[in-house]
Amino acid sequence: MYSNIHMPKGFKCAGVSAGIKLGGAKDMALILSDFPATAAGVFTQNQVCAAPVKVCRAHLEHGVARAIVMNSGIANACTGSEGMVAVRDMAAETAKIIGCEPQEIFVCSTGRIGPQLPLDKIVPGIGTLFESALIEHVQETAEAMMTTDTRPKVSVAQLQIEGRAVKIVGFAKGAGMIEPNMATMLSYITTDAAVERHAFQNALKKAVDASFNRISIDGDQSTNDTVLALANGASGVKTLDESSDDWDAFSRALEKVCFELAMMIVHDGEGADKFVTVNVAGAVSDADADQAARSVANSMLNKTAWAGTTPNWGRIMDAVGYSLARVEEEKVGVFYDDAQVVAGGVRTDIAVEELIKVVSQTDFAINIDLHLGDGAATVYTCNCTEEYVRINY
Amino acid sequence: MYSNIHMPKGFKCAGVSAGIKLGGAKDMALILSDFPATAAGVFTQNQVCAAPVKVCRAHLEHGVARAIVMNSGIANACTGSEGMVAVRDMAAETAKIIGCEPQEIFVCSTGRIGPQLPLDKIVPGIGTLFESALIEHVQETAEAMMTTDTRPKVSVAQLQIEGRAVKIVGFAKGAGMIEPNMATMLSYITTDAAVERHAFQNALKKAVDASFNRISIDGDQSTNDTVLALANGASGVKTLDESSDDWDAFSRALEKVCFELAMMIVHDGEGADKFVTVNVAGAVSDADADQAARSVANSMLNKTAWAGTTPNWGRIMDAVGYSLARVEEEKVGVFYDDAQVVAGGVRTDIAVEELIKVVSQTDFAINIDLHLGDGAATVYTCNCTEEYVRINY
Repeated sequence: MYSNIHMPKGFKCAGVSAGIKLGGAKDMALILSDFPATAAGVFTQNQVCAAPVKVCRAHLEHGVARAIVMNSGIANACTGSEGMVAVRDMAAETAKIIGCEPQEIFVCSTGRIGPQLPLDKIVPGIGTLFESALIEHVQETAEAMMTTDTRPKVSVAQLQIEGRAVKIVGFAKGAGMIEPNMATMLSYITTDAAVERHAFQNALKKAVDASFNRISIDGDQSTNDTVLALANGASGVKTLDESSDDWDAFSRALEKVCFELAMMIVHDGEGADKFVTVNVAGAVSDADADQAARSVANSMLNKTAWAGTTPNWGRIMDAVGYSLARVEEEKVGVFYDDAQVVAGGVRTDIAVEELIKVVSQTDFAINIDLHLGDGAATVYTCNCTEEYVRINY
Repeated sequence: MYSNIHMPKGFKCAGVSAGIKLGGAKDMALILSDFPATAAGVFTQNQVCAAPVKVCRAHLEHGVARAIVMNSGIANACTGSEGMVAVRDMAAETAKIIGCEPQEIFVCSTGRIGPQLPLDKIVPGIGTLFESALIEHVQETAEAMMTTDTRPKVSVAQLQIEGRAVKIVGFAKGAGMIEPNMATMLSYITTDAAVERHAFQNALKKAVDASFNRISIDGDQSTNDTVLALANGASGVKTLDESSDDWDAFSRALEKVCFELAMMIVHDGEGADKFVTVNVAGAVSDADADQAARSVANSMLNKTAWAGTTPNWGRIMDAVGYSLARVEEEKVGVFYDDAQVVAGGVRTDIAVEELIKVVSQTDFAINIDLHLGDGAATVYTCNCTEEYVRINY
């Protein structure tokens, strides 16, 4: 699927089975930069966060990275001091092989909350990643990140800066479970551009806000959510910052990669078979629009109605009404794609068949106009089927 | 089921089929007081609220009630000015038969959002309620309130005040759907006590906060949620207020009735077959404890794990962590009933079989201690099964 996609210059990657998951599925991945790379990162806001998240946050202070090493199958969350030791061991082992400082290694985990990592499998796994698996194409690495994702997720952007080719390659895994586990969103972005550290962090934060932070599968925020970005400068371009002529082109490319990966995550939402874009316009503020859009996107009654191919606009009105956004019922307009079902807070005379036609699609939009101001926001979500419940039993 | 339960003195009630629902199910109910009753009410906080809620709020200003008239099948929500006219017609028709002012009539609806009420069925239905159906026992009335409730819900309290028998009878309907519809919580409390108006409103608000406001089925707040209480004084006792010797006994009885009805609603949650009590203690404040408890109770990942009989304590830690409550991971304790699975933020060595034994029950508690202060709160919820999704397609 992604076997013909190669990493940016100066990056290698690997994905192997270290025996953490049952059945021999790939469960460890490595992203390695030949040169010290500028690092940026965005992490879960959850007050209960995994040991690797705590260590990544600390290592990000250092600002330079050589590698990301990760495992799937076990989240290393709620594992106390033993879990912290395991992360430091993973970083130290990787750093020893590379010959760099441990704080230049970012460690991630995803999978079951609670168990301790099996270091007797992970330490040899790190060796295998380096010794026999380092490659320049991305398929195996993306596969090793998966939990109940049904497919690997990779996005690529290429641009010209100062006449040189610059590449961005991003990986992600989505909200998925393995056994009775926690969903985790992980994403790694690599680029051979050189980017000034603070500009890179700001650009990543902005790209994440417009992508991963705009999607919702089930409203649960993981202990492990992590987005890391590494820029190693191997393309040979001058260091980019916000004053560079090419800054807009670079940050747009970064945003595109994040956005594509985020959309892949929603499309692969657990048990989901419909992709729904919720647009809210006319709010008092963008923040209000965001509240209203999230309320509609997270409502179980909306998600199940979409699963049932039912144009239940009443549930949309209800969710808008109980959101924290300011709403005046008699001004609200609601559309399924372009088909307007609510005007001035009451139903239009559009035929229900027109609405059913829209919600029968695998990809449609709910467009809401509050008619109160200029605030707007979009949230991307999916339907909730019986399969979601079965997956999460 | 409730055929041997009689109304408090001076109340009659009725439940009939007026042809709003298909198939001849009962769909209109009446609660009538022979005397002007003191009224109290608590309504949905949704900014999009049904026409009858708007009219009930206005009539509550008047403070005196003779009757509650309600229909199930259509919610009369998002129905604009035509919906308001329909509510006023229902109140006027009922008032005309009784010979009272329209503002002494409370009107409620529950069912599908959007359609206009069929007044050609409802006006004759009001006549039928009075002419042929008025009775003193409660079964038919409770049945007529139902949508996809699987059983009617009635609670009774009796107490002695000044040597006289005082009775409280409460009705409720729960979160249920009919066709693709909005869940609505309705409850009516009747008593033959005489109660001073403001004290009654305060007592009802307090009872609702400790009962209906502590339950969660799916986190969606309806456009129609309404609790109304009528006290007609027919028991002959002196008017109660907060300074009365018997005030505590009365308000406790009122709380008991509200609490029992709220528990019945959770037990009859859509598709649910497990009742789960989420207790949070040791929070910085009661409000923090409430945030943490709601976060756990509303998490789809917890609700589906309970459905799968899986003691997935990681999802509990996760939901506590992303709640708005202050949490220090390394202090958190989690118990399934009395079985402690987390101490100091990490798993204890309790056998998983002990935990499975707890979550295999149809009624169990999740007890969480944040070990930060004295704040405590409880939320009552249920599991989420595939059946929930099917019901709401």
